[in-house]
Amino acid sequence: MERETALKIVEKQITEHRYLHTIGVMETAIQLAQKYGEDPKKAEIAAIFHDYAKFRPKDEMKQIIIDQKMPIQLLDYNSELWHAPVGAYLVEKEVGITDQDVLGAIKYHTSGRPNMALLEKIIYVADYIEPGRHFPGVEEVRELAQTNLDKALLKSLQNTIQFLMKKNQAVYPDTIETYNFYILKGGRSN
Amino acid sequence: MERETALKIVEKQITEHRYLHTIGVMETAIQLAQKYGEDPKKAEIAAIFHDYAKFRPKDEMKQIIIDQKMPIQLLDYNSELWHAPVGAYLVEKEVGITDQDVLGAIKYHTSGRPNMALLEKIIYVADYIEPGRHFPGVEEVRELAQTNLDKALLKSLQNTIQFLMKKNQAVYPDTIETYNFYILKGGRSN
Repeated sequence: MERETALKIVEKQITEHRYLHTIGVMETAIQLAQKYGEDPKKAEIAAIFHDYAKFRPKDEMKQIIIDQKMPIQLLDYNSELWHAPVGAYLVEKEVGITDQDVLGAIKYHTSGRPNMALLEKIIYVADYIEPGRHFPGVEEVRELAQTNLDKALLKSLQNTIQFLMKKNQAVYPDTIETYNFYILKGGRSN
Repeated sequence: MERETALKIVEKQITEHRYLHTIGVMETAIQLAQKYGEDPKKAEIAAIFHDYAKFRPKDEMKQIIIDQKMPIQLLDYNSELWHAPVGAYLVEKEVGITDQDVLGAIKYHTSGRPNMALLEKIIYVADYIEPGRHFPGVEEVRELAQTNLDKALLKSLQNTIQFLMKKNQAVYPDTIETYNFYILKGGRSN
């Protein structure tokens, strides 16, 4: 799908602010794809559609999670998590995208998962560091992303988990499992 | 079992420093038991034996985890976690303690678990706040423990998880599940 076609589709689904964020994620994801040897076209499409379902009503997302037999524990956790798996589903159903790499990158862009595919890491990190993001720690992740994608991913996971804990919010188990996976992969010994 | 008998048994298993810590946990646990309506005698015994296995060789603990079919993923995580379930096993086998409340409090005193029993919470929190403990945040948990045991437990879990993340260490899934359980129980809405 051409970039302009994709952008026009997604523009109707999200706010202007979120659209500008999406452009930032797209540019960042393409740059990371070129650096780390991923197909930039896949990065472009995954980035454009990553927040496709962000503004769907909660009730609709909830019903899709139930009907599509997604992990039911999603409903116990922050609804901010829902748009990622629901987005992957809707992007396939409504837009007709079938590339499993692209759909996986959309599906896991908020929670992460252990042993993420390269495109999944790129979208996760690009979503965190795109130029419109301004929060403590983002600059460190930006720098890491230029040298070591796994370290950038790990740092953004750490920041996210710490942020949730400071706000007394639950941490989705997949997120801590992803953190643990990359910590243990990094070779911590007992 | 009389306090002096129990202390004599455990004194042979641990260092002098750890013995002093054990006395602190015992006194704190008895005070919390009196405050929250737990049997102080159970709190005393659980506290005295909570670190019974702390100085067992790692190989021995590992073998017990395997032989006794304890959760095998324990071996992927920090060995600091091992002495709790191994301790519960050895305290039953070697000391002859069969009280399931006491054994549970020993078993879960490091990882925690969702929906902890009162005695388990008391030992977990007492271990964290006993007078010999000096680290950032301990005073806040000491104060919480005098008014709300669940909040003290949650704060000590949060501090522990944040501490592990700052040190780039894995977080045992049971610990984050315990954190999530008490956060969600606290009534966070989505």
